[in-house]
Amino acid sequence: MGTSALSVAVLGASGYAGAEALRLLAVHPRAEVTVLGAGTAAGKAVDALYPHLHPYAGRVFEDPGPDEVAARADAALLALPHGESASLAPALVEAGVRVVDLSGAFRLTAGDYPSWYGFEHPAPAWLDKAAYGLPELFGETIPGAQLVANPGCYPTAALLALVPLLRAGVIEPDGIVIDAKSGLSGAGRHPSQATHFAASDGSVRPYKPGRVHQHVPEIERHAGATVTFVPHLVPATRGLLATCYARLRGGDPGHVLTEAYEGRPFVRVLPEGALPDTKRVTGSNMVEVAATTDGSTAVVMAALDNLVKGGAGQAVQNLNLMHGFPETMGLDHPAVYP
Amino acid sequence: MGTSALSVAVLGASGYAGAEALRLLAVHPRAEVTVLGAGTAAGKAVDALYPHLHPYAGRVFEDPGPDEVAARADAALLALPHGESASLAPALVEAGVRVVDLSGAFRLTAGDYPSWYGFEHPAPAWLDKAAYGLPELFGETIPGAQLVANPGCYPTAALLALVPLLRAGVIEPDGIVIDAKSGLSGAGRHPSQATHFAASDGSVRPYKPGRVHQHVPEIERHAGATVTFVPHLVPATRGLLATCYARLRGGDPGHVLTEAYEGRPFVRVLPEGALPDTKRVTGSNMVEVAATTDGSTAVVMAALDNLVKGGAGQAVQNLNLMHGFPETMGLDHPAVYP
Amino acid sequence: MGTSALSVAVLGASGYAGAEALRLLAVHPRAEVTVLGAGTAAGKAVDALYPHLHPYAGRVFEDPGPDEVAARADAALLALPHGESASLAPALVEAGVRVVDLSGAFRLTAGDYPSWYGFEHPAPAWLDKAAYGLPELFGETIPGAQLVANPGCYPTAALLALVPLLRAGVIEPDGIVIDAKSGLSGAGRHPSQATHFAASDGSVRPYKPGRVHQHVPEIERHAGATVTFVPHLVPATRGLLATCYARLRGGDPGHVLTEAYEGRPFVRVLPEGALPDTKRVTGSNMVEVAATTDGSTAVVMAALDNLVKGGAGQAVQNLNLMHGFPETMGLDHPAVYP
Amino acid sequence: MGTSALSVAVLGASGYAGAEALRLLAVHPRAEVTVLGAGTAAGKAVDALYPHLHPYAGRVFEDPGPDEVAARADAALLALPHGESASLAPALVEAGVRVVDLSGAFRLTAGDYPSWYGFEHPAPAWLDKAAYGLPELFGETIPGAQLVANPGCYPTAALLALVPLLRAGVIEPDGIVIDAKSGLSGAGRHPSQATHFAASDGSVRPYKPGRVHQHVPEIERHAGATVTFVPHLVPATRGLLATCYARLRGGDPGHVLTEAYEGRPFVRVLPEGALPDTKRVTGSNMVEVAATTDGSTAVVMAALDNLVKGGAGQAVQNLNLMHGFPETMGLDHPAVYP
Repeated sequence: MGTSALSVAVLGASGYAGAEALRLLAVHPRAEVTVLGAGTAAGKAVDALYPHLHPYAGRVFEDPGPDEVAARADAALLALPHGESASLAPALVEAGVRVVDLSGAFRLTAGDYPSWYGFEHPAPAWLDKAAYGLPELFGETIPGAQLVANPGCYPTAALLALVPLLRAGVIEPDGIVIDAKSGLSGAGRHPSQATHFAASDGSVRPYKPGRVHQHVPEIERHAGATVTFVPHLVPATRGLLATCYARLRGGDPGHVLTEAYEGRPFVRVLPEGALPDTKRVTGSNMVEVAATTDGSTAVVMAALDNLVKGGAGQAVQNLNLMHGFPETMGLDHPAVYP
Repeated sequence: MGTSALSVAVLGASGYAGAEALRLLAVHPRAEVTVLGAGTAAGKAVDALYPHLHPYAGRVFEDPGPDEVAARADAALLALPHGESASLAPALVEAGVRVVDLSGAFRLTAGDYPSWYGFEHPAPAWLDKAAYGLPELFGETIPGAQLVANPGCYPTAALLALVPLLRAGVIEPDGIVIDAKSGLSGAGRHPSQATHFAASDGSVRPYKPGRVHQHVPEIERHAGATVTFVPHLVPATRGLLATCYARLRGGDPGHVLTEAYEGRPFVRVLPEGALPDTKRVTGSNMVEVAATTDGSTAVVMAALDNLVKGGAGQAVQNLNLMHGFPETMGLDHPAVYP
Repeated sequence: MGTSALSVAVLGASGYAGAEALRLLAVHPRAEVTVLGAGTAAGKAVDALYPHLHPYAGRVFEDPGPDEVAARADAALLALPHGESASLAPALVEAGVRVVDLSGAFRLTAGDYPSWYGFEHPAPAWLDKAAYGLPELFGETIPGAQLVANPGCYPTAALLALVPLLRAGVIEPDGIVIDAKSGLSGAGRHPSQATHFAASDGSVRPYKPGRVHQHVPEIERHAGATVTFVPHLVPATRGLLATCYARLRGGDPGHVLTEAYEGRPFVRVLPEGALPDTKRVTGSNMVEVAATTDGSTAVVMAALDNLVKGGAGQAVQNLNLMHGFPETMGLDHPAVYP
Repeated sequence: MGTSALSVAVLGASGYAGAEALRLLAVHPRAEVTVLGAGTAAGKAVDALYPHLHPYAGRVFEDPGPDEVAARADAALLALPHGESASLAPALVEAGVRVVDLSGAFRLTAGDYPSWYGFEHPAPAWLDKAAYGLPELFGETIPGAQLVANPGCYPTAALLALVPLLRAGVIEPDGIVIDAKSGLSGAGRHPSQATHFAASDGSVRPYKPGRVHQHVPEIERHAGATVTFVPHLVPATRGLLATCYARLRGGDPGHVLTEAYEGRPFVRVLPEGALPDTKRVTGSNMVEVAATTDGSTAVVMAALDNLVKGGAGQAVQNLNLMHGFPETMGLDHPAVYP
């Protein structure tokens, strides 16, 4: 790569995940955003939608086809609807672009798509070729991958909490309960009754409880476990906390987490007695994890910013790994706290 | 009683629970607050602390002893520290005052107090005489009781969710997980780093996870079950949601809840597909409950206002039952929504 | 009236203002809601939209014409779009229904409507017959009125702050600045980018600054003054604070306010040194007012709940006055605080 | 300086302003924090108070005297109580350290301190030598200064809004009204009843209205104008909006702002019709300004993050200017939005 810039296309740049990618890439020392794709917002100025993205002042969203993207970008971050990504990502890779896809289109097996996402996968051969982009747990295949499936926000938190304990055999892999709480930016930029301020301020509520949310098969596939999953909306903009409950086989979950994440720059395993707080990771790519046990049940908790480590930040982390940059490049700023 | 007023003392009236009792009793057709007790605030005007309590304008907090309370009140609501209530409640009852105690002083067995509350109970004989004031589940003993132990906020939600299913045998009584989320008024009026606005706005965090919180033995005693309990603070003033997970034995949890709460004025069992929302009970004595299952795990959810059904509202409900008033007297206003 | 119930139609009952009227009327001792009108929601169950309105469980929104409303109701509260009210209110009055209209359709002069509301008024003769329903300032005409124009939320706060001082001649009537801050429920129930939680949480922003907002002519007409008015949205659901700045002619503004509101049940003039707080009026019909001066400028502040004293609560207050009920009937509950 | 690092002491590092300085300096390419001073927290680990400041993990707050600071640091940022800074800053400068002081100790004239800050200034000779560190308006003296008085949060917003218009003569310098709204982090880290979450969530309230707040003389001195100033607390953590009202002499305020801030990297003059939003500057050093007029009154608005451009960010900007670094160094990241 030398020291020349990596040219990056952000497609779906007008949504919250895309805009967050723009925010992070604006201060990335080696990346340069050359394409700002946004179907519905094409033709609009970036600062008409997002005045806070001042490094992009004067630039305009556009809607280029895959060949044009390939002509202008080495890599692409896709923050598009699942079905759109399922077709576009392979087309981009075949045109020579390395892709990090933030949708769910490459996280499951072909058989999962009709029931969980409501479409027959148009490019099933790519499901095996896609690396699952959770670097702390599945990092080996990312550097060589042409296509990385960036994990969902809930799976990122739940898997970071559970997988080390499952691998170490300290918890049972069945009957795991994951109770997750997310801020409302996770629901995206499109306004709705459910995300209306007056209806959400002061409101704590579950949604899609049990085995309904499409992140259930993603968690189960990559954890190798069965889970009951209840996500909740809480009155915060950013932040996601997964509180996971599993039957303890034996051993010390806290110790296992400490060893598993030794030296990993984005995971803060809290000292005994300390507990995660979503506010302490706001705006940053950090995850806070902690575990405790009452002798028979392990409680494992992980807090992250759903738009950063649960989305665009992890995508930049994957981009770094795919291109041989230091993993933390452009992602080393602390959280905005308080 | 005739139609004369019931004179009520509110002791501990300067805290949030006590002030909430004043709010509710201000519009109670049969009760009249004759004593406003508050040790630390004695001598201060009510409207200096709580200008919103306009019906008490001109009145002053005082600090009367039990005999004076007995001379001026038929009944007392105690919103005092646990240790203080443990001594005062029996003294009041012996002086002829019927007591609803909002502390934890009469909810457990004598052996529980040293480890969970840090004191040897000064009046253990009263523990058996106190009725546990959760009318929808343990209502029989309340009308005749001299002393009612008003349940904790978390136990109220958890027990309303779980007990009908345990009684019906549709869930296993061991290994239950209760993941609860509470607004910050539950932490009381006293400011601290944990309840500082800048530290709490946008913050979702667990505390006392596992078997640490003093509401664990209260839930287990009255449910006849063993639980793992993790409370969380979420950035809302009021509202408490308990999401409970239990192994399903068989049967239809939703149907059981519907039958159990048929005709109960303060429990809204939601229709299938609908889920609780704390915002819809704010300021009211209502509870929203719902259940779902994935075949092996039952998820049961209950939402309430921690200061009303989880505190002062339930205390007024108990006061009504103790004095033969309609259960809903003074408590029939809908929630303040949005 | 005897002791029989007053039958009331709430039209536009599916919006926030209408739903708030339903909440308040549910505990009104003399009123009974006989018609729940809602054009777009007609046919839907009330508790499908608003489960918190449990006293209306089982009832259904409908869309009756004026004659049917007249057949079933003595009085009507209209929470409808301005243009719709402009036609419907006179039709209802002519059919024998006494009307409190919460829209802006009867608050201005005929000449104001094209420029400020975008329509030619269809019933200009009714503009003079409508009483302006701000009881503390213009109460004389309300009892005898067939049609009451319920004031806007901002005008209610601004006029309660300013009019006594203008009448007493202690402030200059020109060059008044009104800087107002409102919670987001003021923007109604319909979701939009501006009221999206993720865009509004943590956001403080002005809108329609200067002489743009349609409440400018309403304030000026009823104050007899000229104003610069800048409303702001702040991240709260309810609550409206107007901070008003006027040149002081002389005299003591605080003293004038105290005298003006002596004995008025819904206005709390704060003692010297105390300042209004929107939280202390949430859910109640109270207004908190205070004034201070630096010798040349008077600062007058008023805080209210935009949906209660700034909307449905004031409408019920007007309904009481029109029907000879005590002014506070159904409105005497304290605010929900904290 | 060459390319070697600038060693910086942050004194008062345990408060919010100091911690924000640590956050920003952690990603500053040329600065290195060599001293973390904090009297009350001395001996505590940085990550015990602020786990989010991961670049400082393992480091400990200390309480060094001025000589030791001078031995270990080229420059110092002081986030200390006013009275403490008043003595310490001169001592540090005399020991050879260049100082940016975030307190009010060097912003006024000697005669102002007894009445506005409650102490006789211990080093009045330094008041003239201190540069007022508002680079966009008073930038000339900053590069050569040994001591920079970093402006207050409210003055930064108000002066950026007003000074260009005053200099251009388009507004009158007397009778200006400044109505400001601030998030609660402006009240600091220490918990109190006023900053308690339950009392602040949903609360909009003025404080110190008129000519009471100590930022009044600071604004008046640096604007050369007389003002009425009412700050308000709104339920947000960060963000400050100043809405300023002045009599218009003539000319186009928006045009004047555009010209005044042409090429200034941290001031975004909004296009006509657009209005500031505090959320769009959260976490960044940007200010959004806009002006409008109704012909007789100019309304000028400025939004910033009180902890960044209103505090630690501006301090880093001043540090850059004092040391010949590009003004934006370490400050070029966009706001965290939404």
